[in-house]
Amino acid sequence: MTSEILGQLPKLPKTGVINIFTKHTSSWTSQAAKPSGGLSINENCDPDVRIDMETIFNRLVPENQPNYEHTLEGSDDMPAHAKSTLSGVSITIPITNGHLNMGTWQGIYFCEFRNYGGARKLVVTIIGE
Amino acid sequence: MTSEILGQLPKLPKTGVINIFTKHTSSWTSQAAKPSGGLSINENCDPDVRIDMETIFNRLVPENQPNYEHTLEGSDDMPAHAKSTLSGVSITIPITNGHLNMGTWQGIYFCEFRNYGGARKLVVTIIGE
Amino acid sequence: MTSEILGQLPKLPKTGVINIFTKHTSSWTSQAAKPSGGLSINENCDPDVRIDMETIFNRLVPENQPNYEHTLEGSDDMPAHAKSTLSGVSITIPITNGHLNMGTWQGIYFCEFRNYGGARKLVVTIIGE
Repeated sequence: MTSEILGQLPKLPKTGVINIFTKHTSSWTSQAAKPSGGLSINENCDPDVRIDMETIFNRLVPENQPNYEHTLEGSDDMPAHAKSTLSGVSITIPITNGHLNMGTWQGIYFCEFRNYGGARKLVVTIIGE
Repeated sequence: MTSEILGQLPKLPKTGVINIFTKHTSSWTSQAAKPSGGLSINENCDPDVRIDMETIFNRLVPENQPNYEHTLEGSDDMPAHAKSTLSGVSITIPITNGHLNMGTWQGIYFCEFRNYGGARKLVVTIIGE
Repeated sequence: MTSEILGQLPKLPKTGVINIFTKHTSSWTSQAAKPSGGLSINENCDPDVRIDMETIFNRLVPENQPNYEHTLEGSDDMPAHAKSTLSGVSITIPITNGHLNMGTWQGIYFCEFRNYGGARKLVVTIIGE
């Protein structure tokens, strides 16, 4: 979703950083209310990377484990919280000469860890001069 | 520990970010000297989430594995270092309109990964204007 | 690599943060082109910690799994992408009184997750006043 974000940014400062943070809607009844997404930087070239990332995260934190306590919101809820901590909920990217200074093959991933996540809200903060 | 931190902050800038970083005391003899805690953002509503997070982290990086080399400081020491890298030792949260711009159900977790961790020191840096 | 980075920094501001971000060369033919390294803060005292971190990461995301799709660039490529997301590709460290405010035993790790990673490029951004 690198281009989706880049397309909505104002003119960037010459030097600084951009912080992107996953927020969640405040509706208690909405699945999207809970911290269960993550942000990461990874290869943006081969779409197979996304499939394998999901395979690997599902193996690291499987659903339906008998010792989970927090199961009221569905079998994918607690695993989503743990995956969110593993990937992190914010990323900070340097700005150099007015552009995001990422590698050519780096892209911004939003990792949806719920099976039906709904809309997600991001906060983007630009710091620099 | 969101409210513990919020209660000690000065007036925040209108826009910016806050960075929270886990530091450690410098006493070599203290368990708290080593990087073995983490910071994360996760659901702050159901306390069961904390129990399950511990279960999941303990399964990901179990104690007493035969191939660990760094065991002098106890069986929980090397797993704590690894968990600390998995969760991260700092978090950055956006400030919008003078308030931390987190979701309603997001809270700040300090993850103590040692069995007897002692006091931990955090550095909070506020950036913005 | 804490001292390598510290040795190349200009005079730091009194208060602020430093962000370190792993970038990658743009050559498509180079292994170093892909996001497959990570940055972390961990114990800088006992070198055994580094050995165990590698053991643990290799157990968490093993090579040569039958269900990986992204295998064209070698068996260590997809695991490297996943490890990179688990550790993160940037770190933010507070600056207090003109110095990096880390704990005595905390050091900056560059985690090379490819078997033959080549040169890596870091972007260091200093923010503060």
